[in-house]
Amino acid sequence: MIELNPIAIVKNTRKLVKDDHWGDVVSTIELIPPMTEEALAGIESFSHIEVIFYFDQVQTDKIETGARHPRNNANWPLVGILAQRGKNRPNQIGTTICKLLDHSANTITVQGLDAVDGTPVLDIKPVMKEFLPQEEIRQPGWVGELMQNYW
Amino acid sequence: MIELNPIAIVKNTRKLVKDDHWGDVVSTIELIPPMTEEALAGIESFSHIEVIFYFDQVQTDKIETGARHPRNNANWPLVGILAQRGKNRPNQIGTTICKLLDHSANTITVQGLDAVDGTPVLDIKPVMKEFLPQEEIRQPGWVGELMQNYW
Repeated sequence: MIELNPIAIVKNTRKLVKDDHWGDVVSTIELIPPMTEEALAGIESFSHIEVIFYFDQVQTDKIETGARHPRNNANWPLVGILAQRGKNRPNQIGTTICKLLDHSANTITVQGLDAVDGTPVLDIKPVMKEFLPQEEIRQPGWVGELMQNYW
Repeated sequence: MIELNPIAIVKNTRKLVKDDHWGDVVSTIELIPPMTEEALAGIESFSHIEVIFYFDQVQTDKIETGARHPRNNANWPLVGILAQRGKNRPNQIGTTICKLLDHSANTITVQGLDAVDGTPVLDIKPVMKEFLPQEEIRQPGWVGELMQNYW
């Protein structure tokens, strides 16, 4: 077993857990002690960050360890929980690349974070070109349909 | 406090924790119970996956909660631990996008995972185009120097 402590908390206007329309959402992420504001020094020289967060509102008995239809929509194929990005997953971890809008002391402001108000943050990493895929991405057709209204 | 359980283990030929030359490393990732092989169903329709893993060999007293020079190299600026991707970070989480080479039952084979043999895996997510940055990436000059021999 691995024990983690949140390093920060998400604050935004999204109170309800809903699937779509995250693109314009602006969130602040505020560090919590023992993190110090020095932990964010220089982050403003990056245009994008990756936020690693914990889906704390998922009910434990709804976690899928096998396969399911994405969003439980039978129009999409039955695929493994590790072949989709839904929140009802083992360890309840989300990872999302966001635009960094602002940095001040122990707080950053980001756009496009798909996490509700109050979500605990486990880590923040700068996005580096060298860590993005260098080859073309191949993905199945259902992804484009599911993502149509996501941002 | 958040409690997580590894869902899989990394197997490869990299036994020592060293910084560079990860590009050609081929790793297998094998699920552990209660995960079932159904959890990977359909993953082969994606070209890339993101592996979320735990830097279990980091010594707790070496974890940085403020700022440090990347790789402790004074030629690079003093930046916050959240403005770099080094392993000595709060919660010891790594996230890396890898090429998916193969999938068979409860095992996948990937290229370019920068994790040593035996590393616990916390999550695996498919890389979707829609979750990659849509704008150009801006990053400071030291990143290109640090990453020169990384892959």
